Amino acid sequence: MRREITGYSNPTVKYLRSLREKKHRKAAGEFLAEGLRLLTDARECGHLPELLVMAKTREAHTLLDVLEAEVLRSGGEVIETTPDILSKITGKSNPQTVTGVFKEFDTSLAALDRDAAPIWMVAESLRDPGNLGTMLRTCDAVGAGGLILVDDCADPFSAEAVRASMGAVFTKSIARASWDEFLPWLRSGPGQLVAASLRDAVPYRGAEYTKPCFVLVGNESQGLPESYEAECDLRVTMPMRGRADSLNASVAGAVLAYEVLATLEK
Amino acid sequence: MRREITGYSNPTVKYLRSLREKKHRKAAGEFLAEGLRLLTDARECGHLPELLVMAKTREAHTLLDVLEAEVLRSGGEVIETTPDILSKITGKSNPQTVTGVFKEFDTSLAALDRDAAPIWMVAESLRDPGNLGTMLRTCDAVGAGGLILVDDCADPFSAEAVRASMGAVFTKSIARASWDEFLPWLRSGPGQLVAASLRDAVPYRGAEYTKPCFVLVGNESQGLPESYEAECDLRVTMPMRGRADSLNASVAGAVLAYEVLATLEK
Repeated sequence: MRREITGYSNPTVKYLRSLREKKHRKAAGEFLAEGLRLLTDARECGHLPELLVMAKTREAHTLLDVLEAEVLRSGGEVIETTPDILSKITGKSNPQTVTGVFKEFDTSLAALDRDAAPIWMVAESLRDPGNLGTMLRTCDAVGAGGLILVDDCADPFSAEAVRASMGAVFTKSIARASWDEFLPWLRSGPGQLVAASLRDAVPYRGAEYTKPCFVLVGNESQGLPESYEAECDLRVTMPMRGRADSLNASVAGAVLAYEVLATLEK
Repeated sequence: MRREITGYSNPTVKYLRSLREKKHRKAAGEFLAEGLRLLTDARECGHLPELLVMAKTREAHTLLDVLEAEVLRSGGEVIETTPDILSKITGKSNPQTVTGVFKEFDTSLAALDRDAAPIWMVAESLRDPGNLGTMLRTCDAVGAGGLILVDDCADPFSAEAVRASMGAVFTKSIARASWDEFLPWLRSGPGQLVAASLRDAVPYRGAEYTKPCFVLVGNESQGLPESYEAECDLRVTMPMRGRADSLNASVAGAVLAYEVLATLEK
């Protein structure tokens, strides 16, 4: 179906705006992803939006034509609107000229296939959605299976996380669990749990990583709880040549994941 | 000097608020840094705020007492105010209970001592202040001398960059220059310019890094211009095992910088 929206108070506009808030996303089970590049990545991985919202001022683009046709064919809805209304929906003054509404995915541990990849990333109480999206993007780069979000993490379906993931939110597995759910799941099969740590750790270069390797990163301010570190199979330390004793969480995860990748591919 | 501010329309409040905007920072040559931890890092590296603003509701802390005393001794000003006014100044609903106003530093290339460190990071048209601050933080971790901002980068003195740097804005050198200024400066002394690239590149692991090594990272969306890459002494490629062909800029810089560090310390 195709329709045009011209009024700010249209209920669909109100609904789409509401998806900027976590509680509304959770209630609806839907989220927004902006931009033709992201939507094309999603489509190529089998994710079509339920709803496609386009600015009337958009430039013509073959990929957008393909997307539009597929959304209509699959029974989705295509909405044309003004740039101002699109701006109101996305909350950005210069929004992309196209936005899609997607169903949230299954994020249960049970849905993960650990044998599908040699590396997995695990984040514990990661609060910054930008860091979360960046970790998903890194998962894509290192060929990790996906990201497991432990305890109280940011929402992977927030606009900022989706944007920072550069499409990886659609291509990588995402699971959410408490530590008390994650640990038994991990121990129910093969898997090496590795964390960067300052306690009882070996140098991260040359450490004996084995697959499937689960790279665990802690909260931005607190790092990992000591009891979580104690459960790790391997604690590694990265050089800190300055005043501080830590890196940005998504940076630490990436440096470690690249080291794991190099070891496993040797 | 010590004083109390109780009114929102106080000119000092207006001035401090204005520092959230780049043009006002530039005109004033001053910037804000929030939080006792950041301010203590700054003090320990010889940077005292001109002005210290504290919420009346703050908890007592020895480090804050030291800071306050030193600011007063050096002729600076200490202001007490309400949490609401502090919130208005910083633009955050839950601001830190202490904020300092600092003079911007000299960011000319001429002020850099390239021999002071084996690694330097260079960012070209880096637009995201969070990425910029994260790169400064990484500079600290790998023992880099600092960050050189080439062409049109985000402002290192923005609140977001200062926060993401976790204090490294005070401990690392920062320079700003156009490419046409940077390149002759670089070539006027020793220095290997290295970039992650997809063109004519060798694997990043095992590449022959030499000091001082300048790790160059390009713009978040466009990467490096081809002509800039052509000027590099070494182009290296990082494994990309997924759909995308790039990492977050600050992540790419960190993975590369840690590899350079490992090689130089061998």
